[in-house]
Parts: sequence; C-alpha cells; structure tokens
Amino acid sequence: MPVPDAPVTGAHLDQPEPPGGPDRPSQLDPAIAARLRRTPDGLVAAVVRQHDSGEVLMVAWMDDEALHRTLTTGRATYWSRSRREYWVKGATSGHHQYVRSVALDCDGDAVLVSVDQVGAACHTGQRTCFFTELPLTSGEVSS
Amino acid sequence: MPVPDAPVTGAHLDQPEPPGGPDRPSQLDPAIAARLRRTPDGLVAAVVRQHDSGEVLMVAWMDDEALHRTLTTGRATYWSRSRREYWVKGATSGHHQYVRSVALDCDGDAVLVSVDQVGAACHTGQRTCFFTELPLTSGEVSS
Repeated sequence: MPVPDAPVTGAHLDQPEPPGGPDRPSQLDPAIAARLRRTPDGLVAAVVRQHDSGEVLMVAWMDDEALHRTLTTGRATYWSRSRREYWVKGATSGHHQYVRSVALDCDGDAVLVSVDQVGAACHTGQRTCFFTELPLTSGEVSS
Repeated sequence: MPVPDAPVTGAHLDQPEPPGGPDRPSQLDPAIAARLRRTPDGLVAAVVRQHDSGEVLMVAWMDDEALHRTLTTGRATYWSRSRREYWVKGATSGHHQYVRSVALDCDGDAVLVSVDQVGAACHTGQRTCFFTELPLTSGEVSS
C-alpha cells in the first residue's frame, strides 16, 4: 500500500471495544463486522481498483472503523499499520479516491473497493503501486 | 480467499529458518524476501486477477515459500491461514490458476498475480469471490 498521506482523527477511546476490533471501537454495522475474518492485528485487505477500467491500483488495510468510514463517507479510508492511525486517501496529496462500490469476498478477509481515482494512486507518483514485476522461472502456461 | 482445495507437502523442517518467515523455511530469492513487509503471521496479500480481462478473482495469502513456488512452478500456490498448510489452486478442483505474471507493490505487502483461471476461482462456484456488495450510505461522487 502507499504511504499514508493524511492522518485523521482516530478512534473514540471512550467507547466500548467492538466485537471485531482488537483495540479500536467502530460504528461498523454489526452484521458486516460479524462476517469479517481479520489478520492477527485486526485488519482485512482492501484491494482498490479503478471502477471503469478495472485497473488494480493498490492494496491497503482496513480495520472495522476504516471500512465503516469508507462505506459512509464516500472517501476511501484506511488503517496505517506503520503509523497506527486512520488516513483518508488524497486528503493532503489531492489524489482522492471516490468510492463507487465495495464488495466483500466469500470468506470475509478482503474487500474490493471500486473507486474513481484522481491522479496517481501510488505515493511514488505512478498510477498503480504494482509496478515491480517479479521474475518467473517456469515456462508452464495453460494448455 | 476460497477454501483450500489441495494440501501439499509443506516446509522442509530440517532447513534453517529464513530471514523473512516466522517459522517456515523458504527458498525464495533473498533479494525478494528482503522487500516483503508481512503481517504479524508472516504473510503478504495476493490479489489474483484474470490476466486478459483484468477481473479481480480472489485474494489469498502467501508466505515466502508460497511466493517462491508461485514464481517457479507456474501454478498459483498459497498459504492457508486456517489449515496452516500450502495449497495449490485447482489441484483437486481442477480450477487451475496458470501464472502469467507477478508484480510486487511499492511497499512489499501485496502481490498482484495475473493468471489464466480455469473455471471458477471461488469455492462457491462463482467466477469471482467478490460477489457480496456492501451498502454505501453516502452519495458523494467525483466532481
């Protein structure tokens, strides 16, 4: 995922701990929260694609509250693993992600976020974060 | 990610622990391993898409060795978080994933695997695992 470009106000620590989050309260719909299957640090993977071209732009991470904010504000919001805070994509860079749809996968450990991406998704200035090809050493292809 | 359909022989426990993996040795190129930024349980997210249409099919998880096997065998191989074993997509279901390319993202916590998917990617029989739309409650769209 790209480097966060905008920390925002975090969790409301005077609220009780939610069922899903390890230490951060959330207003996420309990019916959705119950379907999530999280990493040990309470996160699901968020795959972000351009809604019309289908291009995969980046992967970031969401806890319950980041997903809640993404679903209710129309702006893609993530949890930064390194900074341990929420960030709204584009808040300082201007490279906004306007959310068009969000889909949960069959076992609840990933969401697919379709966005209208303004400018570059990657903090390096590239359109997509997936610009480093890894070498394949097998020639097998489909028959 | 879909339910694993084929456990395969796991790690070679008589080998020394690699730099990256928490408890599973790997033959992954150390130059690649050094770029990975893993979850607390030693995994990166693997986003799988159909190589020609670009359709996002599923998200699964790879440790270092699963990535190594994916790069060197031409067959998408994952680590099952629930079963704690490697699985080769399609080995029992016939829904093979022939690897066409693999790209690492800018900060090393996700790979994008472009495959030729045979049949359904999802264990439910759907083509893609992302068939559950979540409701958006904001009308904001790009200006």
